[in-house]
Amino acid sequence: MNNKKIVVHAPATVANMVCGFDILGFAVNDPYDIMSISFSDHAGITIINEDEYNLPTNPEKNVAGAALLALMEEAPEVKGFELRIKKQIKPGSGVGSSAASSAGAVVAANALLNNKFSKEDLVRFAMNGEKLASGVKHADNIAPCIYGGVTLIRSIFPLDIVQLNAPTLYVTIVHPQIEVRTADARSILKQQIQLKDAIKQWGNIAGLVAGLQKEDYDLIGRSLEDVLIEPIRSILIPGFDLVKQKSKEAAALGGGISGSGPSIFMLSKSESTAKEVEQVMHEVFENIGLAHHTYVTTINQHGVKIIS
Amino acid sequence: MNNKKIVVHAPATVANMVCGFDILGFAVNDPYDIMSISFSDHAGITIINEDEYNLPTNPEKNVAGAALLALMEEAPEVKGFELRIKKQIKPGSGVGSSAASSAGAVVAANALLNNKFSKEDLVRFAMNGEKLASGVKHADNIAPCIYGGVTLIRSIFPLDIVQLNAPTLYVTIVHPQIEVRTADARSILKQQIQLKDAIKQWGNIAGLVAGLQKEDYDLIGRSLEDVLIEPIRSILIPGFDLVKQKSKEAAALGGGISGSGPSIFMLSKSESTAKEVEQVMHEVFENIGLAHHTYVTTINQHGVKIIS
Repeated sequence: MNNKKIVVHAPATVANMVCGFDILGFAVNDPYDIMSISFSDHAGITIINEDEYNLPTNPEKNVAGAALLALMEEAPEVKGFELRIKKQIKPGSGVGSSAASSAGAVVAANALLNNKFSKEDLVRFAMNGEKLASGVKHADNIAPCIYGGVTLIRSIFPLDIVQLNAPTLYVTIVHPQIEVRTADARSILKQQIQLKDAIKQWGNIAGLVAGLQKEDYDLIGRSLEDVLIEPIRSILIPGFDLVKQKSKEAAALGGGISGSGPSIFMLSKSESTAKEVEQVMHEVFENIGLAHHTYVTTINQHGVKIIS
Repeated sequence: MNNKKIVVHAPATVANMVCGFDILGFAVNDPYDIMSISFSDHAGITIINEDEYNLPTNPEKNVAGAALLALMEEAPEVKGFELRIKKQIKPGSGVGSSAASSAGAVVAANALLNNKFSKEDLVRFAMNGEKLASGVKHADNIAPCIYGGVTLIRSIFPLDIVQLNAPTLYVTIVHPQIEVRTADARSILKQQIQLKDAIKQWGNIAGLVAGLQKEDYDLIGRSLEDVLIEPIRSILIPGFDLVKQKSKEAAALGGGISGSGPSIFMLSKSESTAKEVEQVMHEVFENIGLAHHTYVTTINQHGVKIIS
């Protein structure tokens, strides 16, 4: 048996990016999960958790396990994997914790297999983890976690991932310690929307993509507007409106709910603004009396990183 | 009085660009209207038609007149204009005939006024012509007519026009000689749509904008899909599905209804493909027995052009 061991860092990701519901996402440099994988003599997948989250070790009930099982179906030469996971991205925080586990596992396994699979294959495998976590195969966290930068999922069936330009942007994230279940955040959405609202939304999406490609920060800022999802979902996040208003007053370009929440993210052109935004977030949640974590980070340009 | 006379060519335009309903449009080099303007001693606007279309000469009922009236409100130094219009873009063909008149008039007037106004001002004035023509202030023909290339109207109120990159593209247009009233084409649309269809649409819009910026022709082709408007409006255009299918078989990147129809446009990477597409269009409409005109042209990069 090959004794090689691969260690990876799998980054947190922000899905939706305000106006790009279900189609846009980006990776950040902090926080990230640490995972290692090696071949195993034991058939199947052995999962060892090295953190305090008590996630399932049965591979069929663990998102990384589900992703690896999908990979193994197309790699019959593999008898078994041993996967160690040290999660640093808190499950349920809305910054792609499950995607990091799923994506990290398959990227690491692919390195063991001498890059047998394409990135698109890896997204396909990892989406099985998302299906386990939320009931739906979606790629708006998985794709940026694997590709890095800002990704567009033009289509899920067939899978069509487009890597967008990611200009230098500082990202401030606050995770208020409340629980928002993805399934709840999805069920409160209206399945029917007004055409005129959709037109406003796709004007903003087109503006955001153009702004990223042209590195036009003002255009990015003007386009970070969501008339459809945010007005509904933000009700689940205390302090949301105030964080957004005060962050913009502190010169953030804009931002909104990360994924389905409860984390909130803001983009800034400079690190000093991003740190002021962090201060604003602290103040809002201290006033409410809500425990919270913050991160000031940047866009991660490479995705899951192989450390050794 | 200043005896200067300005002559302009005002290009036809294709609004919507398949998935970009109400937000995208591009200008083409052929056909175009020829217009000339000079100051007049007579108060108000004198319109002289030099074509066979018998359009109204009362400036309040003429789209170019309505646009000039809006301009004159902000140029009180002007006593009167004399405007001569030789339309070559057939009214009602769906390639921005009214927009060419409105945009051509205000660009020409602005040249007489030593460029007193910004392009954005000119769009604002010209939209009054669109309001007269269709009942709604929209800019998806006006903006590309004035700016050239491919334009995004991110927002109408406030007006936010973004010039997109326009890679070399050949455009084949067929105008079947049937009447589709813009008001009818608008009234048959559903005002409520499914969120899941909207997500598909904005994935395509994001893909199209990214494809244009990156000059990725395959991505442009994959993104030229409209799941919301085309399935409804295309019913008004006999032969539509066959033109689309056969054009793609002839290697067109894709295309669809120009504006609200009845013209159909197809984009191609090479001139030879664009000419094959023209042949396909001829065959389809000859088989149906429907009179039609075709154009093989390219994207117009400069908008309304001042000739002398």
